[in-house]
Amino acid sequence: MSGSYMLADRIIRRIEELAEISESAGALTRICFSPEHRRAADLILGWMRDAGMTARMDEIGNVVGRYERRSPGLPCLMIGSHYDTVRDAGKWDGPLGVITAIECVADLARRGVRLPFAIEVVGFADEEGVRFSSTLLGSSAIAGTFDESLLDARGADGLTMREAMEAFGLDPDAIRRAARRRSDILAYVELHIEQGPVLEAKDLPVGVVTAISGASRFQIELEGRAGHAGTVPMSLRRDALAGAADCIIAIEKHCRGAAGLVGTVGQIAAEPGATNVIPGRVIFSAEVRAGEDQIREDAILRVTEEVKEIAARRNLRLKVAKTHERGTAQCALWLREQLAAAIEASGYPVLELPSGAGHDGMAMIDIADIGMIFVRCRDGVSHHPDEHTATAGVEAGAQTLLRFIETFRPRTEPGE
Amino acid sequence: MSGSYMLADRIIRRIEELAEISESAGALTRICFSPEHRRAADLILGWMRDAGMTARMDEIGNVVGRYERRSPGLPCLMIGSHYDTVRDAGKWDGPLGVITAIECVADLARRGVRLPFAIEVVGFADEEGVRFSSTLLGSSAIAGTFDESLLDARGADGLTMREAMEAFGLDPDAIRRAARRRSDILAYVELHIEQGPVLEAKDLPVGVVTAISGASRFQIELEGRAGHAGTVPMSLRRDALAGAADCIIAIEKHCRGAAGLVGTVGQIAAEPGATNVIPGRVIFSAEVRAGEDQIREDAILRVTEEVKEIAARRNLRLKVAKTHERGTAQCALWLREQLAAAIEASGYPVLELPSGAGHDGMAMIDIADIGMIFVRCRDGVSHHPDEHTATAGVEAGAQTLLRFIETFRPRTEPGE
Repeated sequence: MSGSYMLADRIIRRIEELAEISESAGALTRICFSPEHRRAADLILGWMRDAGMTARMDEIGNVVGRYERRSPGLPCLMIGSHYDTVRDAGKWDGPLGVITAIECVADLARRGVRLPFAIEVVGFADEEGVRFSSTLLGSSAIAGTFDESLLDARGADGLTMREAMEAFGLDPDAIRRAARRRSDILAYVELHIEQGPVLEAKDLPVGVVTAISGASRFQIELEGRAGHAGTVPMSLRRDALAGAADCIIAIEKHCRGAAGLVGTVGQIAAEPGATNVIPGRVIFSAEVRAGEDQIREDAILRVTEEVKEIAARRNLRLKVAKTHERGTAQCALWLREQLAAAIEASGYPVLELPSGAGHDGMAMIDIADIGMIFVRCRDGVSHHPDEHTATAGVEAGAQTLLRFIETFRPRTEPGE
Repeated sequence: MSGSYMLADRIIRRIEELAEISESAGALTRICFSPEHRRAADLILGWMRDAGMTARMDEIGNVVGRYERRSPGLPCLMIGSHYDTVRDAGKWDGPLGVITAIECVADLARRGVRLPFAIEVVGFADEEGVRFSSTLLGSSAIAGTFDESLLDARGADGLTMREAMEAFGLDPDAIRRAARRRSDILAYVELHIEQGPVLEAKDLPVGVVTAISGASRFQIELEGRAGHAGTVPMSLRRDALAGAADCIIAIEKHCRGAAGLVGTVGQIAAEPGATNVIPGRVIFSAEVRAGEDQIREDAILRVTEEVKEIAARRNLRLKVAKTHERGTAQCALWLREQLAAAIEASGYPVLELPSGAGHDGMAMIDIADIGMIFVRCRDGVSHHPDEHTATAGVEAGAQTLLRFIETFRPRTEPGE
């Protein structure tokens, strides 16, 4: 087994090294256009160059390494993930994909392997969207869909994105030059921790992502009548919280059964919120995600119908506001097949699963076919210091990605 | 109809006059041992004397008026309510009972009626318990059950009850002298607004209270596992909020059916409380009240059993803490019969109903049989500036109380 962790050991050392770069000592937080962004970029650019790539920071702060084929300037297989984090983050979400891709290229370079296509490794500057409450900044700039009105968005420190970029040393008016052409990119592939418990439950180290789930979010308000908890008989109540409880159960019920379909009520507030007062008003969030838009939309229809029935039956006033909607980003079937073949060839059973969490592929799909490999993480925990990936999973992911790269056949053959 | 509101008009004028005495101009708040307490006491003591009573403030700050029978010092029919308020209160809760009793005595005095027993009208200094978070201070002092450890309780202004009483001009060490003997009191009767919607729903101005409901309160905590709302499949979730929703529905279900039985979840908090995170922990309150202890206890047993089943089925850790328990205070059957007769003689149908809210009778029952008359209030609203009682209800309540007094037959004949 001496050679079996040949990639994982190096990857994990670098995961640890990158995790040292944080705005505070006790917790990992790395937001875009910060001093930590600069230090992390410099570290990764160095790793890219060590791996035999040319490397640069692009106009939005992404780091981009390129491993040429025999002649330069031709289309590439782009492999990436992000190197920003949420606040008090784990160290795997994002960096694992960037570092694994670099190590795969380093392995090719060490062995002197040149492939019939270029490879680009991208570390996206901001996927999480912590600083300006807007996600996928890095990948949308590369996809050419960056929304320039975001330059006026203001972070918690009072600086606009424009000001923050300038202080960081980037020219906000040059962002569009980060955009790539569709013909530059043969495919976009990302390796990422699952951030969920499915692979672990099936005892598998890796899986192929079918799609990045679409999501719809709602704010639901039920208004009944507050009243004295001792004096209003059950039959005369218009209890907004009892109505909300019915709705929560209905959401759970209608979001069961279809693979990849999930429904969640994460926030709830009951007013006036006293032990001895019947709640007169309840506001709660409802979120539905699915790997297929039709499945998500059907579930929302069923939930909406039942929520209306509940409100009518309980004589509650109902307000539903959609606060967010994003369609499903389908992973390309030809990439799924090649990723599955690489997993199989690495000796693991193939499991396909949707990604309930969002990823840079949601932006990259506008400019390239996308594919994703998931690596098992411990207990499904993510966005938390306890986020963890075992060495065996890291190695399985790296071996799979390496095998995928070495056997990659573009859908359209690149020109010679 | 000219004579029909002969009592109500005077009562309502005095309700308005008393409501002017508040610690702030925009909202009615009158807490014990405050300058407003003193002003209100002086006003009520004046009304008592005008009504032909001797009147005094007792050692806890209650106002006590006495209308003697032919020879002084003999047992009394005690009629009362409280003259403190909650914060931002309505003006009827408490004062209606005190003022109506005074007006009944005034009517007797005007007509020169002397009854074969004394009448005492009591305005209790603190029923609501706003200042020291402890209710029934005034009535427990008269009942001889005042808990002297409360003298060290500290209000929001930093003063202990002892300090506040001294500043007010009362001697905290004399409280026990406010206690009355059982042989002093033939019965304790209170007129109070219903604070609920039952009389209004039945289109009745008054009703007879069967019992002041006992109440049990619990804090229930469910702990599951927080997780990403996109990545954790429904089948692998341990969603604490979905579990709480099941419990809320169970509480509602098991507290239906028995008259006077009510169950309420008034407070709920879900953690971590983000739209896109499955709640890992939920804490909620649960309260059960009933007019009979056995009914309340049976309901709690059924609820507890189902809550345990829910937690087990959903793999949630359950913690249940009882935060409050108070047994039912039964109104004496012989007083209920005389009150019902007075209602009937006043021309109204008789409805008996439990009081879900607490009242001074809960303390007075330790020293006397208790009875209560409820007066209809608008929309069941109480503890709120919108609290309202229509003139017809005020008159019906007053006429009923007056008739009850004039025809009152003590259970044990008072000595001559």
